[in-house]
Formats: sequence, structure tokens, C-alpha cells
Amino acid sequence: MRLRAREDGSEFEREDSLAVEEPLEIRLHAPGAPGNTRFVTTMRTPGHDEELVAGLLFAEGILRKRADLLALEHLADPRVEADLRANVLVAELAPAALARAEGLQRATIMGSACGVCGRTEIGRVLPEGTPPIESALRVGAELLLALPERLRMRQSVFAATGGLHAAGLFDQRGALLELREDIGRHNAVDKLIGTYWLAGKLPLSSNLLLVSGRAGFELVQKASFAGIPLMASVSAPSSLAVELAEAAGITLVGFLRERRFNVYTHAARVAG
Amino acid sequence: MRLRAREDGSEFEREDSLAVEEPLEIRLHAPGAPGNTRFVTTMRTPGHDEELVAGLLFAEGILRKRADLLALEHLADPRVEADLRANVLVAELAPAALARAEGLQRATIMGSACGVCGRTEIGRVLPEGTPPIESALRVGAELLLALPERLRMRQSVFAATGGLHAAGLFDQRGALLELREDIGRHNAVDKLIGTYWLAGKLPLSSNLLLVSGRAGFELVQKASFAGIPLMASVSAPSSLAVELAEAAGITLVGFLRERRFNVYTHAARVAG
Repeated sequence: MRLRAREDGSEFEREDSLAVEEPLEIRLHAPGAPGNTRFVTTMRTPGHDEELVAGLLFAEGILRKRADLLALEHLADPRVEADLRANVLVAELAPAALARAEGLQRATIMGSACGVCGRTEIGRVLPEGTPPIESALRVGAELLLALPERLRMRQSVFAATGGLHAAGLFDQRGALLELREDIGRHNAVDKLIGTYWLAGKLPLSSNLLLVSGRAGFELVQKASFAGIPLMASVSAPSSLAVELAEAAGITLVGFLRERRFNVYTHAARVAG
Repeated sequence: MRLRAREDGSEFEREDSLAVEEPLEIRLHAPGAPGNTRFVTTMRTPGHDEELVAGLLFAEGILRKRADLLALEHLADPRVEADLRANVLVAELAPAALARAEGLQRATIMGSACGVCGRTEIGRVLPEGTPPIESALRVGAELLLALPERLRMRQSVFAATGGLHAAGLFDQRGALLELREDIGRHNAVDKLIGTYWLAGKLPLSSNLLLVSGRAGFELVQKASFAGIPLMASVSAPSSLAVELAEAAGITLVGFLRERRFNVYTHAARVAG
């Protein structure tokens, strides 16, 4: 777009790109049923939409085993305009998964960074007694310190500077396996975990997750669902994120940048 | 909390503070009714909770005039533990407001940065034909450039470095009138606008809003509801934020930092 810029006291007009934010409507479909029902609309950056839907429904506890998801396709209804149909995905669910979705209260539009959706009682914000993650993963400090630069190098210059969040999955030697980007931090994580869920590759019990920005409660919850034993962020974690990481058996690393980091929980996985 | 830190190659243990993130459950109550109904649970940093609830219900279109909110109090039920009751606020609504709330689909837990809740059709993400904001506000470039430092100076050192977002309302001479902080950007804005809504001081048609971090669609939407003619952020806006600002008559300023900024929409309010 054309915009007016001011820099060092002088003004000029120039072209600039924007991080794209568009709504994605997720609908649920029962096998053989004539129609489908709206489940949720989330604001996201288009791309890897199928992975986003799979990751979000998995993080909500609706999808468990791979067979729960029978099909995942764009809306085919010809009465809806084509550009709107590109922003609607229909997930056909097995009956048990559909029942879990109906058990959640009807969802609403979520902002770009929304994550913990579907529960309305405080007592249920923390997940039910899932056993802590067990993993033999051990990493050195130098390996951790190298991760943010590897994530940035794989992002485009625009993405890194222009407002897209990134989530990367690394192996235990620090190699970047997959990167997903989105205007919303939790969407980037859903896209990433959804990719592995769709491929039947969960739990990710010898991997590391790195997210740009802060680490809130809901990101730790997603890592916990995916069985990831170490989650790092370049910025601060929240109090509830630390509490959940402690309970879930996740090593939580924060402020990973500029040759420093903090280890908040389960520090034994980081070699001293 | 006690954590393990690594800096410049050496490791040590130290105490550190965390930005607090806790769930706040919002319940709705009809005058004279025996009980109340859960409306939504949002993750937030405790503090200014009444303002947050007012701002959120206003941004959802449930609260319109001041008389719509009859009472706003913590849960009194003695069967619920005291520390849980501190995280539950009950809003008593006039019948028309309650009907609007029931018209929204039942809401769910929102993550710290969730904002656009309550609508499930893509066509309804953009607000209905509200007239663009009209305001005689004109500001100079130097005034804009001074705002971020004024916001930071009013934040505590911890808040500015430790992961709290800030939203500040300024007058047309650049004086900071009110500041609100939260782990979630949209909560900080809800707390700020809720403060003015509760005081019966909307629309804020000669004020400027500055938010830390990015400017997403939902923040522009909140500014639009409050009648704020100029919104600035220290980082990037999204494509949909720019579209909405254009339609709503809002001057949208981005990347306001280090002696520079961009003006994306309605640039006439910024003196060249």
C-alpha cells in the first residue's frame, strides 16, 4: 500500500507491505449430514490453513487420534462468493470428536492471539491430571543460544520485520525442522503442531519449540498437548505459563536473545 | 520466583518477577433473577478488573448507554473460595443489554490477546455501517514522536521490560491522561476505554490512543467504538486494521519509534 512515512525529520511517500490478517471460519460437518455448523472464526494470516484448523481443534481437545478427522475442505457451496469460500474450512469429524465439539460451548470469533478457547470455568483452565512429560532430551546452552538466529534466517525479511510471529520446531541437535508464521502467535503454534498432527507424528517428545514474542499460558498448553519437553521464547513468560510448565513437565526458557536466557522450570534438561 | 539465568557465558541463580496472568470470569445477572450465567473467561493481569469488564462488554456491543450497566461486583457466593471469587465479576445488566448478550453466541475462554469475540460470520466481522469518525484533531510530527517515551516513563521498569503491554490515552497537546497495562494488548485497551465509559466520557473524539506492540484489527475496532480519531502503535498494523481504520475514519500511525513513523490512513490529521 501507499503510505506517508517520516524518518529523521523528513517526510516522503512510499510503498509498503502489510502483514495480512483475514478471518478464517471453521465449520464442523457430521458424516452424511445435509449441512454443517459454524464452530469458530479466527483472525489469521492466510496460508497453512488446514494445519491451523487441525492444530486448533487438537489444542481444543476435539481431535485426538488421526481418525477423528475424516475430511478437511474448503466450503463448496456455490451460493457463497469464491473469495469468501477461501476463508471457510469445513472439518468432517468422527462422531466422538463431534460430540466433544458440541460439549464445548459454542465458540465465537477469536482475535489473532487468542488461544485458550472452549472452557468457561476457571477450574477447567488448567488441564485435567495429565501426567508430566517425560523425555530424555538434554541440550547445552550454546545450542539454545543459536536457535533464534536460525528461526530469523528462515523467515523472510518482511516477515521478521513486518509483524509476523514465528514458531519453529527444532530437533535435539538444534536443526530447524519446520517453521510456521502468522500475525497471531498462537496461530503460528497451531499451524506448526497441526502439521505434525496431520502427519501422525505426535508426541514430539525429543523436540524443542521456539516462539517469537512472549510465552503465555495458552502456548505452554499447546506444547503440553503435543508432548514437547522444551519450549523457549525470546521474551517474557507469564506467571500462569510458568505454573503450567512446572506441572506439565516442560522446560520453559525465556528471554532467549542476545547471548542470554532464563530457565524457569525443569532446568535439568539444560546442561550447565 | 527463583530461576536459573545465563548471561555472557556465565550461569547463576537469581530472583525474578513475572507478569501475572490469571483468568477472569465474567458473569451476567438479570435484575431480580436468582442466579447468574457465565459469559466469558478471559486471561488477564489482575487490576482495573471492573474497567476491563466494562470495556469488554462495551466493545462487544452489549453495553451501550451507561444505564445498561446496573451493577458490577465480585461474586458473593460464600460456597466459592475467596481467591476464586476475586477472579469472578458479576455484571448486572438492563434487559436490553442482556438481550444483546444472549444474542451473541455463548462465549468461551479468550487468550490474553483475544479481542473480536461474539460474531461468527465473516460478513459481520466488519462493523455495520457506522459513520466515519469526524474530528477536528490535528497533531504535528514532533508531538507524535514524543508519545512512546511518555508512555514508557509512566510504566514501571518491570512493566516496560517484563512483558506487560500498555495502552495510553493522550490529549491533543500530547499529555498522557491515563495508562492501563495488561499481559494482553486488547485487555489494556479495554481497561482504558472501560475507564472512560464508566465515567460517561465517551466519545473520545479529540484524543489519541497509543498501544505498545502491533495494531491488529480488533484494536482498531475498539478505538472506533470509542470514537477515537487517531490510533498509534509502536509496531506494524495488519492489513485488516488498515482497511478498518480507513472505513472508520481513524488516522492509523504505525512503527512510531526511534524518530520515525508511518501514517497509513487519514493522513490529513498529521501536519506535514
